[in-house]
Order: sequence, then structure tokens, then C-alpha cells
Amino acid sequence: MADHNALPLVILAEKFASLPGIGMKSAQRLAYHVMSMDEASVEAFAKALVDAKKNVHCCKCCQNLTERDLCPICSDNDRDHGVICVVETPKDVTAFERTREYSGVYHVLHGLLSPMDGITPDKLRIKELLARIAQGGVNEVIMATNPTVEGDATAMYVAGLLKPMGIKVTRLAFGLPVGGILEYADEVTLYKALENRNSM
Amino acid sequence: MADHNALPLVILAEKFASLPGIGMKSAQRLAYHVMSMDEASVEAFAKALVDAKKNVHCCKCCQNLTERDLCPICSDNDRDHGVICVVETPKDVTAFERTREYSGVYHVLHGLLSPMDGITPDKLRIKELLARIAQGGVNEVIMATNPTVEGDATAMYVAGLLKPMGIKVTRLAFGLPVGGILEYADEVTLYKALENRNSM
Repeated sequence: MADHNALPLVILAEKFASLPGIGMKSAQRLAYHVMSMDEASVEAFAKALVDAKKNVHCCKCCQNLTERDLCPICSDNDRDHGVICVVETPKDVTAFERTREYSGVYHVLHGLLSPMDGITPDKLRIKELLARIAQGGVNEVIMATNPTVEGDATAMYVAGLLKPMGIKVTRLAFGLPVGGILEYADEVTLYKALENRNSM
Repeated sequence: MADHNALPLVILAEKFASLPGIGMKSAQRLAYHVMSMDEASVEAFAKALVDAKKNVHCCKCCQNLTERDLCPICSDNDRDHGVICVVETPKDVTAFERTREYSGVYHVLHGLLSPMDGITPDKLRIKELLARIAQGGVNEVIMATNPTVEGDATAMYVAGLLKPMGIKVTRLAFGLPVGGILEYADEVTLYKALENRNSM
């Protein structure tokens, strides 16, 4: 914003623009919107920011974000603690929970291996996973990282660590997305769908 | 977010989702991003929100947003205080300032007439404009509201109040946007461009 703009507004717009997916134009629009909110709402927003950062941390078991010591999923005795679904981010946990079909527990790696970007195994929550499994009672680990180069590499790496421990390691199925159109499927997806075909 | 998510994160996502143009999916993404920021940055963001709301108010003269009593434009003696450009929002002031061609001052109405939505003349900063003009020294008022039904209606209404005061009232020119392609211009714009043609 030009120098005729009020400084606190310029600062606020810059803060919004520092968030992912928000450009300077949108950030200005958001800053102006804040001016039209009542003071209590703005203070509640500011409090929500600080509260989330201060009170939310990683679950000591599955590393998902939670405000408790042990997250609701890890402390739920109705869930199958013998099956661990390993995901990249807390968002992936939300995605699986939306299916309402998975009754096991999770482990959040908080990233994928990417040595070029300096993300080596020690940067991920892999040792926490190994420690969980070392405690016993785990029958299966489902590698549910994205079907990308990094996702596959991470799944392979973790599987390589777990197999010598005698743990069954599985990977999510790749194939046609449900409701998708065969004609528009890319070659790799189609090849995977063919390779992993099931008897009817 | 489902109930397995940390409550402070859910609250923060709802705050983001309450902003214009941010849906629930983006809001969740932003909330997760906040978790990855360091605590000082989050606190600076929260402070920027509260500071902007607390310290920014309307200029007592032109009603533009400023943290001073009189905004930098109104207190600039190099500008022509005899010409007032009347705009809908503070964003419009920024748009005109970007042209670097306008040396007059502004008046921000903070809205457009829209009786159906309950926005009657008393809801806009029209009386403040009349009070400014009553003090004398104003030669021209440029109605620079958007070329929409509400923008035109507001321009007409304000012009109707100013003309009996003996003030020259002008309206922004409508025509082809510079760099635009004639073929794609809508009928009304093309008609306006024809009607307001200039001698070469």
C-alpha cells in the first residue's frame, strides 16, 4: 500500500500476505475487512491465533496436533491400537476420519523425506513411530503417504525399517478414483489399476 | 473440522473462514500454517489485528482510514483542496493514488446507496461532505463511484444535493478501457464510448 495508507493497516495487510495462498491484493481486502469488524470480534480473532499456537502441540503418542497430552484418537479405547496408519500431515488424519471407515490409530510424520530440501529421516517423527512399535501390540502399519516421489520414497524407507521388526507393512491401493472417467486417467494410474486388479 | 481436531485449531479455522473469500478448506490450511509459524510471529500477527482496529479510524475531513486525526492527503498543502474526488471505499483512494496523476483531495462515502439493503443516505458520509463544502473553497466535486446501478444512483443523488450549492459536479468518463479490444466491449460501454467521443 502507498504511504497515504494508515501504517497499522499496511502492517496488517503484510501479515495476511505472509500466509500461504494470499496475495497482496487479497491481503489488503482482508485488512480493510478487519476495519469493518467490531472490536470484540477482532480481539477474539487475535486471541484465537495466540491460543492455537500456545495450546496446541503434538500428541505424545501419534504426533497429531492436539491441545491434550494424548489426542482423542489415541485415548479412545474403542479404536484398534494394533493398526497404525502413517500419514504426512494432520490434514491427512482429517481426510481419513471423514471416511468414517477407519477404526485404527494414526502416526503423523510431519513431512516427507526430501534430501534435496534437507529433509532427512531425523527431521521426521520416525523414531517416535519406532518407539511406539517397540512397545508391542502393533499388528499392521499402513503407509498412507501421498502417491508422489517423496511419498513413495518415505513409505519405502519406513517399511524398510519396520519389516525387520516383524511388522506387517501395507501401502494404500492405487487405481482409478471412484467416479473418475477411464479416458481421462493418466497412464501410471491406469497401469496401477490394471496391475492391482481384483477378481470379481 | 471433526471433533478429533484440537479445539483451538477449530476455533482459529472458523475465524479465518469468517473472512471474505476464505472457505472452510482454506481456513483449515491457514490454521495449520499458523501452527508452523514461530510464536513471536503469531503474536505479532495478533497484535497487528488489534492495533489496526484500535488505532485506525476515519480522517475527520475526508473519512478515509488513517491513524492520525487528519490523513496525510488532507494535511498535504501541496494538494489542491478545491477539488474533491468522491469515492465509495478507502480502496478506491488507493486506486486513484496509484495513477500518480490526481492532485486533489478525496471524500470516502463508505458505501453506496442501496435502499433495498437498508443503505439510505444517512448511512453514508454525505453530511460530512456537505459540511466540508459549506466551509467554502471547493470548486469541483468529481463523483468517482463505480459505474453500476448503485454507483450511478449515489452519484446522481449527491450531485442533486451539490448543484443547488453552486458547485461544479463532474462524473468519471466511461468508455473503452485502455488496451481493451473493441470486439469484446459490452454494448453499454461501446455506446458510452461513442456518445462521449472526443475530437482529434
